[in-house]
Amino acid sequence: MDKLTIQKELLKMFGPDRLLSDELDLMYYSYDSSFLTKLESTSPYAVVFPKSTEDVQQILRFAWANHVNVIPRGAGTGETGGCVAVEGGIVLDLSQWNQIVDIDQKNMQVVVRPGVIHAELNNELAKYNLFFPPDPGSSLMCTIGGMVANNASGLRAVKYGTTEQYVLGLEVVVPNGDVMITGGMKSRAIKNVSGLNLTKLMVGSEGVLGVITKIRLRCFPKPRARGIALAVFDNLDDAPATVLDVYQAGILPSGIEILDGSAIKAVNEFKPHIQLPDAEAILLFEVDGNPPSVEFEGNVIREMAGKRARSVEWSTDPQRMAKLWEGRSVTAAAASRVRPDGSRIFAGEDISVPLSRVADVLRAIRELGRKYGIQVVNYGHIGDGNVHTAPVINPENPEEVEKVLQLVDEIHLLAIEMEGTTTGEHGVGAVRRRYAPLEHGLAHEYMLKTKQAFDPKGIMNPGKLI
Amino acid sequence: MDKLTIQKELLKMFGPDRLLSDELDLMYYSYDSSFLTKLESTSPYAVVFPKSTEDVQQILRFAWANHVNVIPRGAGTGETGGCVAVEGGIVLDLSQWNQIVDIDQKNMQVVVRPGVIHAELNNELAKYNLFFPPDPGSSLMCTIGGMVANNASGLRAVKYGTTEQYVLGLEVVVPNGDVMITGGMKSRAIKNVSGLNLTKLMVGSEGVLGVITKIRLRCFPKPRARGIALAVFDNLDDAPATVLDVYQAGILPSGIEILDGSAIKAVNEFKPHIQLPDAEAILLFEVDGNPPSVEFEGNVIREMAGKRARSVEWSTDPQRMAKLWEGRSVTAAAASRVRPDGSRIFAGEDISVPLSRVADVLRAIRELGRKYGIQVVNYGHIGDGNVHTAPVINPENPEEVEKVLQLVDEIHLLAIEMEGTTTGEHGVGAVRRRYAPLEHGLAHEYMLKTKQAFDPKGIMNPGKLI
Repeated sequence: MDKLTIQKELLKMFGPDRLLSDELDLMYYSYDSSFLTKLESTSPYAVVFPKSTEDVQQILRFAWANHVNVIPRGAGTGETGGCVAVEGGIVLDLSQWNQIVDIDQKNMQVVVRPGVIHAELNNELAKYNLFFPPDPGSSLMCTIGGMVANNASGLRAVKYGTTEQYVLGLEVVVPNGDVMITGGMKSRAIKNVSGLNLTKLMVGSEGVLGVITKIRLRCFPKPRARGIALAVFDNLDDAPATVLDVYQAGILPSGIEILDGSAIKAVNEFKPHIQLPDAEAILLFEVDGNPPSVEFEGNVIREMAGKRARSVEWSTDPQRMAKLWEGRSVTAAAASRVRPDGSRIFAGEDISVPLSRVADVLRAIRELGRKYGIQVVNYGHIGDGNVHTAPVINPENPEEVEKVLQLVDEIHLLAIEMEGTTTGEHGVGAVRRRYAPLEHGLAHEYMLKTKQAFDPKGIMNPGKLI
Repeated sequence: MDKLTIQKELLKMFGPDRLLSDELDLMYYSYDSSFLTKLESTSPYAVVFPKSTEDVQQILRFAWANHVNVIPRGAGTGETGGCVAVEGGIVLDLSQWNQIVDIDQKNMQVVVRPGVIHAELNNELAKYNLFFPPDPGSSLMCTIGGMVANNASGLRAVKYGTTEQYVLGLEVVVPNGDVMITGGMKSRAIKNVSGLNLTKLMVGSEGVLGVITKIRLRCFPKPRARGIALAVFDNLDDAPATVLDVYQAGILPSGIEILDGSAIKAVNEFKPHIQLPDAEAILLFEVDGNPPSVEFEGNVIREMAGKRARSVEWSTDPQRMAKLWEGRSVTAAAASRVRPDGSRIFAGEDISVPLSRVADVLRAIRELGRKYGIQVVNYGHIGDGNVHTAPVINPENPEEVEKVLQLVDEIHLLAIEMEGTTTGEHGVGAVRRRYAPLEHGLAHEYMLKTKQAFDPKGIMNPGKLI
């Protein structure tokens, strides 16, 4: 079916207010935050704003009957092209469908529509002394639907795991337009082992199996206290060794972040007043829980880090904590400014490796940066081995673009070689799809078979994940 | 292919020492702990003891080529007939394949073969200050392979979740005999969002998708302290209300157990020296963490429970804790002794409902017991709404058997009606399979499609789960 006919049919269904078909509007939807979509942008045929499960069903029935691709989209904060119509199709912008349907305080859970913003959900939950622990960097913008589709995590995954851990059930419109409810048709149970776990199969499936239209999330009691420790290391290997020492002391911090020398330098150039110490690495530990527990764990971290660090500072004072964390919070922005004509790009930026390999990986990336003459700023969630490597280039310079593509290819292969993965939390999307056979071998074939079981016509978000 | 030919072929492959084909031996494998297998027992054609991935491949290639069913079995501690050849076939007894392949302390993970016993794994991990948190009642007997296949949990799921949460990757022999590695071919990453999450799909799949031959588990730092609180309630509704109060105070205990009046009576008759107070319900809270945290949380629980309980006792003294926990630890045995000619049966024993419905469900089950004239002893993991209902009958009395089957059918339907599930942790197996369409609706059809994608010939553990 051609683009114009699709637009005409959608106009009949949704009217002009809930449809975009103007080229300029569509162009906006050819991007997310990935470098890939800046290189090769493809506009969708149309964008629709569904506001009910029936809306989504109507679109999918139409798409199914006419073999038209469908691409679900949240806030578009992804870094992998996951929500972009790389092979054409209808984009479902779900960001305006943002009702919190039910905060079920008694049963420690919440039901939301896909467009709810992460930070807004936690603001609401806080009124009930509850929280949804995953904490992505894009909290103020990203949607819960996007988090579920990508199994997002962020700072607190060390202690609290990823989004997956909290998803109790989903409403999903499958490709033929039927409505499937996972985790039990009527269930509000917190624990349930009945049937194949389609809920967890859907989490992180990046829209290739269906459209997530409702989400039931487990919530945790909101911790009452937190504390931050900052430790400075002259030797890179001492950073992961200290992380292990802290674990060995029986402590699971809510977050453990690293900035290596490249990130420290970037931060100090971007915001000189922060004055991070010149060092090989900085570790930031965040601890949460009840007040005496936080004090206790802070002391243990101070002691453990003290064995190897040049200096350690620990605080539970909110102002001081914000100050200690400031370097980390501006790192992403700082990376973009390491050269006046440069931008930080999102490509090969999300590898995850075993803790025992982190230092080697950071050294290898420094070496790769030298080889290609490209600066790479390294930081991230060292507690679970998830390193964000931010290459900085002038994207207008074709030679640099060519080089950075080779560099990030090597970074992806390095991650697999170092017993890690090409993506710890940002997802595969269109960017990392080509590594799937290498990373998964036969499992990749079974992913394709599973996809086929849900979507035999291949209309759901083609060109992504697998 | 007939039974004798199958036995002959397996004899050629494995020799007499690793094969059982004698009728008496096979009869032993017609049981697990379920009541169902006591009512209708089916012996397998043969039992094989694989000790390598290649062994399992060899069996599956043979079974695949000849359309023979294959049923994986761990320690046989299941309560759903999950490891029994209800439709005939070859049982793979994996319990002797019990190597801990690698304790990777630096990367907080362990790799095991399926036959490793839960308690033994944790004993080994303790030497490295690590632990694998799920804690099933059958810890001393059950295998990690069985725990993964059933997504087992137990006492600590409130805080630590179920087995699923810890499974980072699996080696699985798929029905045609190929070897699939999930979670990344070579990966030792702790966080990984690459590809469809086949790891979590396999967890709890009860052997219907393939044979799990290697398991990579995340481990947590072992907590250094614990404490126990026992609270006594004159009013059943006060028990779940107190659980919620504790959550609201920001505390997630490692376990919250309930014994209702029926269980209290059973314990006191079984072991009069325990002298549990005569009450409508007892709650037991277990808290773990660092010492000051445990003290703090104990005080909060004492305060919260004190608002509604007749009495609360809190202790961190190991002897006193064991004493407080004694009633809970003998409940399962006590249930078997509530009448001299009776046995506690495993049928309808594992429902999970929202916390807000627990009291109503316990009352409804008491009512059902009266209706059928059958005693039901109620206890379990109230923290996640997982109630164990133990009917006690004389299994030699056909009239009581008839009645109890009606009773447990009503319990299962009640669980679904009360927004819960037929099984919180024991699994579906052959026992609860018939509720799958009612519980899951269209999702059940997609479970069947997924099964078809992995096992088009339907040889893996037929008659189970879906």
